[in-house]
Amino acid sequence: HCDLTGLWKNELGSKMRVYKVDSQGNFSGEYITAKSIATKPIEPSPLIGTQHLDEDGQCTFGFIVNWKFSDSTAVFTGQCFVGDDGKDVLESIWLLREKVDSMPDNWKATR
Amino acid sequence: HCDLTGLWKNELGSKMRVYKVDSQGNFSGEYITAKSIATKPIEPSPLIGTQHLDEDGQCTFGFIVNWKFSDSTAVFTGQCFVGDDGKDVLESIWLLREKVDSMPDNWKATR
Amino acid sequence: HCDLTGLWKNELGSKMRVYKVDSQGNFSGEYITAKSIATKPIEPSPLIGTQHLDEDGQCTFGFIVNWKFSDSTAVFTGQCFVGDDGKDVLESIWLLREKVDSMPDNWKATR
Amino acid sequence: HCDLTGLWKNELGSKMRVYKVDSQGNFSGEYITAKSIATKPIEPSPLIGTQHLDEDGQCTFGFIVNWKFSDSTAVFTGQCFVGDDGKDVLESIWLLREKVDSMPDNWKATR
Repeated sequence: HCDLTGLWKNELGSKMRVYKVDSQGNFSGEYITAKSIATKPIEPSPLIGTQHLDEDGQCTFGFIVNWKFSDSTAVFTGQCFVGDDGKDVLESIWLLREKVDSMPDNWKATR
Repeated sequence: HCDLTGLWKNELGSKMRVYKVDSQGNFSGEYITAKSIATKPIEPSPLIGTQHLDEDGQCTFGFIVNWKFSDSTAVFTGQCFVGDDGKDVLESIWLLREKVDSMPDNWKATR
Repeated sequence: HCDLTGLWKNELGSKMRVYKVDSQGNFSGEYITAKSIATKPIEPSPLIGTQHLDEDGQCTFGFIVNWKFSDSTAVFTGQCFVGDDGKDVLESIWLLREKVDSMPDNWKATR
Repeated sequence: HCDLTGLWKNELGSKMRVYKVDSQGNFSGEYITAKSIATKPIEPSPLIGTQHLDEDGQCTFGFIVNWKFSDSTAVFTGQCFVGDDGKDVLESIWLLREKVDSMPDNWKATR
């Protein structure tokens, strides 16, 4: 449990693939979002992340998506749990940072 | 502008060092936090991150800290601006994910 | 649609009762939380809130719970939608503010 | 200390006036924001809120602004501190909820 390697889907229809997690807990992968605020078409975008490597298989983790079709960046952080059916479930919360023109617009840049 | 390589300090006294940003915008580094909710002493902790490589030098970025002295993970996302004095300023927002015992405690795990 | 008057339950088992919404969209009520980080036993706590009064019945709203068993305050904001089964659904996001001793601890006070 | 009655200004130039706080800690007031994502001109908007009435003068509080020039709602929660110069300082975090057309857009509605 608690190795993020593999394919994950969320309740909004977004998918992510995590390639091999290394001995430090770091990984890379690809995120295919179902949702976007960008004007350009959605494209698969690279992600990098890191997870703790706890023996109990309930690690916390974080990852970042560097969107290829927009100037924005998304960060996710959460924890891996074992669901009722024995499958791993990732619970996470995200922030989406949009690019703004100047510092006075900074207040509104994060959802 | 907008190359995160170097040493940064925030208003709380935390410091981070970002090593060389690669051609994809990815980087690694070290975070020395001034603040902690952990019971163990603070230790420098590794970070990984990614930034856009915009020509206007006002990129968005994200990075993750995998705390060495706790089970928690922190994610930051923000944007690089040129401040009034010509120095680069990073404006960012963070989430701190603590490890909880089970899914019913998930609601309270993120600050 | 989109009159918050009535009894609502969330997916965590918390319940709230909203008394009559007035002509300005303001209301009061009572919140009985299923979840707590306080050490004292949970008690029903008063809430006050306000909603827009849009004709399309999909208003945004906000409310505040002043916890009776702790020094904390919770704020919720969201929107009323008509679900697939014709029932009103409230989608909301919250912040929970704990009391801290002094300003240097302010950074960790909000979940 | 820790009576929110009065006029407050924040670092972005927004102002709020809190009318008399009642014996339950509830109050009403007016918010004049310096920042907006709405297309219509900014107008002063009503707020309601509630605060704890702690003897140590470092209460937590929350308030809601029901914007008159948009369909959005903002919630703020924070704590009153005594600053270095003896003046009260409010530290708060906010969420701004925009109205969206339907539930599939709910994910992006809150900043």
